[in-house]
Order: sequence, then structure tokens, then C-alpha cells
Amino acid sequence: MPQQLPLIQFVERPGIIDLAWGHPDPILVPVDALRAAAARAFDRYGPDALAYGTPAGPGPLIDAICERLAETDGRAPAPEEVLITGGSSPALDQVVTLLTEPGDVVLVEAPTYHLAIRIFRDHPVQLVSVASDADGLRLDALATALQGVRATGGRPRLLYTVPTHHNPTGRTMASERRAELVAVAAREGIVIVEDDAYRELSYDGPPPPSLWSLSAAPGSVIRLGTFAKSIAPGLRVGFMTADPATISRFADGGMLDSGGGANHFTGLVVAEYMGSGDYARCVDLLRDAFRERRDRVLRALADLMPPETAWTRPAGGYFIWVDLPPGGDGSRLRPLAEAGGTSLLPGSTFFIDGGAGAGSIRLAFSRYSPAQLEEAIGRLATVLRRQVPPATMAAPPDMK
Amino acid sequence: MPQQLPLIQFVERPGIIDLAWGHPDPILVPVDALRAAAARAFDRYGPDALAYGTPAGPGPLIDAICERLAETDGRAPAPEEVLITGGSSPALDQVVTLLTEPGDVVLVEAPTYHLAIRIFRDHPVQLVSVASDADGLRLDALATALQGVRATGGRPRLLYTVPTHHNPTGRTMASERRAELVAVAAREGIVIVEDDAYRELSYDGPPPPSLWSLSAAPGSVIRLGTFAKSIAPGLRVGFMTADPATISRFADGGMLDSGGGANHFTGLVVAEYMGSGDYARCVDLLRDAFRERRDRVLRALADLMPPETAWTRPAGGYFIWVDLPPGGDGSRLRPLAEAGGTSLLPGSTFFIDGGAGAGSIRLAFSRYSPAQLEEAIGRLATVLRRQVPPATMAAPPDMK
Repeated sequence: MPQQLPLIQFVERPGIIDLAWGHPDPILVPVDALRAAAARAFDRYGPDALAYGTPAGPGPLIDAICERLAETDGRAPAPEEVLITGGSSPALDQVVTLLTEPGDVVLVEAPTYHLAIRIFRDHPVQLVSVASDADGLRLDALATALQGVRATGGRPRLLYTVPTHHNPTGRTMASERRAELVAVAAREGIVIVEDDAYRELSYDGPPPPSLWSLSAAPGSVIRLGTFAKSIAPGLRVGFMTADPATISRFADGGMLDSGGGANHFTGLVVAEYMGSGDYARCVDLLRDAFRERRDRVLRALADLMPPETAWTRPAGGYFIWVDLPPGGDGSRLRPLAEAGGTSLLPGSTFFIDGGAGAGSIRLAFSRYSPAQLEEAIGRLATVLRRQVPPATMAAPPDMK
Repeated sequence: MPQQLPLIQFVERPGIIDLAWGHPDPILVPVDALRAAAARAFDRYGPDALAYGTPAGPGPLIDAICERLAETDGRAPAPEEVLITGGSSPALDQVVTLLTEPGDVVLVEAPTYHLAIRIFRDHPVQLVSVASDADGLRLDALATALQGVRATGGRPRLLYTVPTHHNPTGRTMASERRAELVAVAAREGIVIVEDDAYRELSYDGPPPPSLWSLSAAPGSVIRLGTFAKSIAPGLRVGFMTADPATISRFADGGMLDSGGGANHFTGLVVAEYMGSGDYARCVDLLRDAFRERRDRVLRALADLMPPETAWTRPAGGYFIWVDLPPGGDGSRLRPLAEAGGTSLLPGSTFFIDGGAGAGSIRLAFSRYSPAQLEEAIGRLATVLRRQVPPATMAAPPDMK
């Protein structure tokens, strides 16, 4: 088909197996089942599938989400604790719009999802970093950050965190720390925004309960779920769970009232897809496929990486975080890796102060076949092994 | 089908023909053609229909919009002057997020679209009213408002206007005034946000060129278009036309980068629907259907309204604005009208200071058949003719 303007976000670069993108492998997208679900949505609802929807989102989808979370989370929400969103990105944007005042402080993990940082920076809020370790966000670092903010007259309002199969590290916050964190949030009067995008993609057994499910203090946790990772990103359907008053604040906001909900039609397509059992079956297939890819990458890393390289072993999600050998620099590595036929995101991308994370990189194992992933890790290892110490590092001839 | 949570926004109330809602008649929604367009989108694009889309929106839809605007507006945009949105409501929300600073002033017509007011009020901006007349926003009132804002140290930033088949009045800004308005905006350094939702629904010949098409000053007009009125609201697809730098600001924003465009899949459904010729055919049918309804309402008003009632004669869109006889009050009329089997929105709904517009009401002729509309106007006329002068007005016995 003749087409000059781009269609999708991913940019294919010949010869490069590109581990920079946290996108799903196209062969794992359930095109046929979604085609059938869309047809059923038209048949079942007729013009109601295309009307202005109810602001909180279509009832059948809310019901389906409540049922699913009964199986995949610590507790199921009541329908009035659910709002349908147009995916986590617009939901995050609305959270900042509706719940912050200009100058409020948004606390973010370090490292954190880099595009969430950009959403926050489109608003008049201040960002403050909170360090994390192998078990997730550090509570001592949170206490210090809150103290620091308050000492200078700042108003901490939101804490953005990805506690489960974290982007970019793949780490999961330990269960005990979860309970402590929600207690801190309730005590400190801040709202945790829990980005729970990867809950369904758990490869080694069930994930810990969400922060939302553990919180007893109304208004102190908003969990953002999405079907971008468990069905397909282009549908733009996700959900929020929170206390009923918070849900009402969003449903009663001008945008959802005027627009008739976030994404009414595609929301009903997802409801049909869930109701048929296709959703549960497809998530099982996705888990199997991504588990195999993760395992293949971990094995290749163990087999091929130079000494003094370290990496995370994620129990789910899309990403592995690699600490380069001493002196390594992700930003300098990237062009070398691309010359060698692969790519990555430098660790500094995921910190609000670009200096941090220089010695790390993020690898996504979501978009390529196991064989391609193994090939990409081999190429990366070759480049890394070729690297001279940073003091004398120069761009190779083929990069000029 | 068993279902307790609501599905759509419209609430059916037995016995009431409800002219309060600016929603399309379900029988005018092209369910079959959209079902076919969705199937074609799945077939043509496969997994690419469900991927993270390019942030500005899918190329095939941008191309189709450029072609259509070549026929329906003063000039066609270049592709880099178009951004796909999730409808006008989220687009308006993003305009405020990305283009205002806290405390900035947003100028709005009086009256104006009431839910736009609510979107603005979700942001830390100040609203200032600008009076309008039969030809639209008054330029002398705009000059006075700007002067007043600046005199008190305010920063006028946006001017929100619906110049074509206005909501709620149905009026259209005269062509000469359009040229003057864009010149004022360029000179004053404000950005006109042109809500162009009703352009396709022009019943008496082509509408005037958009403010966007008339502006030669980059950055001074953003036009918001939508397929909510010309196809169906539940798809949540619209577009913005603006200068390339403004389009880039939105496409490069955190939300669209993170989410992969506004509504990638439904955008491709609309592209298929436009490419097949269904769109042009359906808009012709919509124009015919709504023209007949408008004409029937205007005739019924002329036949049945009590003396000293006045109303607009819209050349397009969904709405007629009725000035009640002296002493009439839309807010008090509404419950009486509902007791009499119809409903409306009080004029005060459309002003940022609730006191204004008390003597007017908005009637939507979009959702019911011509016969039902005629019946509704008859019921309204009966209630109005029964009304005693406001000084002695009391709720009738059946309202207690």
C-alpha cells in the first residue's frame, strides 16, 4: 500500500535488533480474536457501542475487570472503585491535572519509567527523586526525601512508583515493604500512583498484591492498570482502581463528562474479548512466550557478557537492567551497539537528573523472537568486549 | 442482556422527549459501515493496527483529513499541520496543559459550550467572559476584556470559541469578523482555540472558512475537529490543525509519546471509513436528516410558541437558542417542562457567571425523530403558555 507518513511508533532500522523499545512482538498481538471481539461489540450493542459513553466507562468492562482482579490481585474492587481510562499515559496526565496544585512535588523512583517523567514535566509540578534498591523504592530514602521537601516549604503530593516488574529494572517490590509503603503514604498524606502495567505478565507465579489492594486509607493509592501489555497497546484502554470518591473526581471531571468516557467503543471491544475467555487464554500464551524470551536473554547474558557485568532477573514484565563493567557508559555504548547491530536505552534516560545511571542500560526482551534476542545479546557482548577503557575511548571508524 | 452498571451517557426517562442532550439519534449512527471499516482495518494493517502508533497519529488518517478539508474548509492543511486527537475534549484538556502557565487567562465566549468551561476549571487558569451577538464573538468586547485583563496584570493566553454553528446558540460568526478576529489574535499574542465540531453539519450550503484557514500568523490559531458529530462519538477520534511547531509540541508531549498517539486503532477505523467513500456519503445523509429536524423544530416553534418568544435559526449543528418571553427563567422552566414531558438546558448553564442567560434555554434537535421533536416543542409550548408571571409563579401541584 502506498504510504509515506508513518503508521506506528516503532522505527525499523535495517540490520539492527533493537532492544530499546518496550513494545510487544507483533506476532503476539491477538489480531483475529480482537477482530472477532470488535464484530461482537457491534452486534451486541449496535449504536450504543458508538454513543457517548458513561464517564466512568462502560459497565460490562468494569464488571469484567472486577472479576479478573479477583484472580490476579489481593482483592477485587467494587465497581465504584473502577474507572476506565484511555491507557496509563492519559490517565497519569489526568491524575496530575486533577490532583495537584502548581508547585506541588511529585516523588518518583530512581530509576523510573522515562516517559512518565515527561508527562510530569508537562505540568507545573516539581520532581523529586527517591532511591531504590533490589526490593524496590527505599523507604528510608522516601523518609529523607519527604523531610527534605517539607523542610524547604515544598508540598509533597504524589508518589509515582512501578512496584511490580518495574520499568526499567524488572524488579518487584517485596511484599513486606509494600505494606510499610502504603502505611507511610497514609500517614504522610501523599497519594501513591501505582503504575501496575505488568501485573498480568508474571512469569514465575503470581505477583505480590498491589499497593492499592493493601491500602486501607481511602484516597492514598491510585492503581493504574492497562491492557496495552496484556492485549495490545493500540486499543488505548486501561483502568484505574481507587476509592469511590477519587473515582468520582475523575468521572466528574470536565474531560470525561464532555467526551463521554475515555474510550467507549474500544472499551466494549475489550469487554467482549474478556467475556469470551480469549483474554485469559491470551495472557497465558503471552506469559509463556515472554518467559521463554526472558530465559533466553538471561542465559545469553550469562554465557556471553564480559566479567564484572551484572543484571537483574525479572519475574515478569519486559525489561532487564544491566550494570556495565566499571567505566562503562550507556550513552557512549549506544552508538557502538547500533554500529554492531543492536540497540538499548542508556540508564541515564530513567533518572530525572541525567548524570545518574550512566553505568547501566535497559534491555527490552518484548519485541523479538528468542533467536533474535540471543543474537542481539551476542552482538552487544561483542561490542562490550571490544570496548577500551573510557579514558582512551574513541568512536570507531565506521561511526564517523 | 443482564446489566446493571450504565453503558451510555444518555439517560432515558420514560415519558420525556429530552432536548437537553447534544447527542446524535442512534438511528443515524452508521453501525454497519463502521463494522465493515473496522474489519478492513484489521485486515489491512494486521498487528500494526494494534501497535503503539506514531504520536501525531496514523498517516493514512492524516492524509484522509487533509483531503477532506480541501473540500470543506478554506484551505487544506499539510500533513505536518495535523495531529490526531482522542476527540475534542481530551484535545482541549491537552491544549490547556501544554500551552498555559498557572494563572493565565482563558477568554471564553458568553455563552459558550458548558463542558468546555468544566475542562478549563480543572486547570489552574482564570476564565474571563467575552460577550457575543448574532454574528458571534464581539470584537469590541474582546478588546475591552483584553484591556481589563492586562490592566490588572493578568496574562491572556487562550481564546476559546465555537465560531461555526455555535454550541449553544447555533450562530455562525460572519466571514468578515473572522478575518478581523484572527488579526486581533496575532496582534495580541493570544492563541485562538477554535472548536470546529459542527463544520460538517452545515445545512444551508458550505460554512465559512475556519479561523485556522484564515490565519497567517503561525501559532495563533489551533482548530479542533472531531468525528464525534460526523461519524459517532464513541470512537473518540478527532484532529487538531495548527502550525507545524504547535503540532510538534503536542506530538512531542509526554502523553502522546508514552501512549503511542491518541487513539491509534480507532483512528485507522476512521481512515478506512473515509477511504471507502462511506464518510462522505454518511455526512450527506446526516445533513439531510438534521436539516429536516431543524426545519421541523423551527416550524413548530413558529406555530406554537407564545408571543414574545424568540429563537435562533441555525445554519448547522445541533442547537437552537430560545429567548423566553419577558420574566421567563430557564432554570425554573426545566422542572415544569419535565413534568410536561420534555426537557432542555437552562441558558445560565452556558455562562461562567451563572446569573447570565437566565431568560434563555438551549434545545438540541439531534437525538429525536422529526415527529418526536414536533411533539416536544408542542409540550414545551403548552408549559410556557401555562406559565404565570414570575412574581407569582409557583410549582404546579404535580411537581410537589
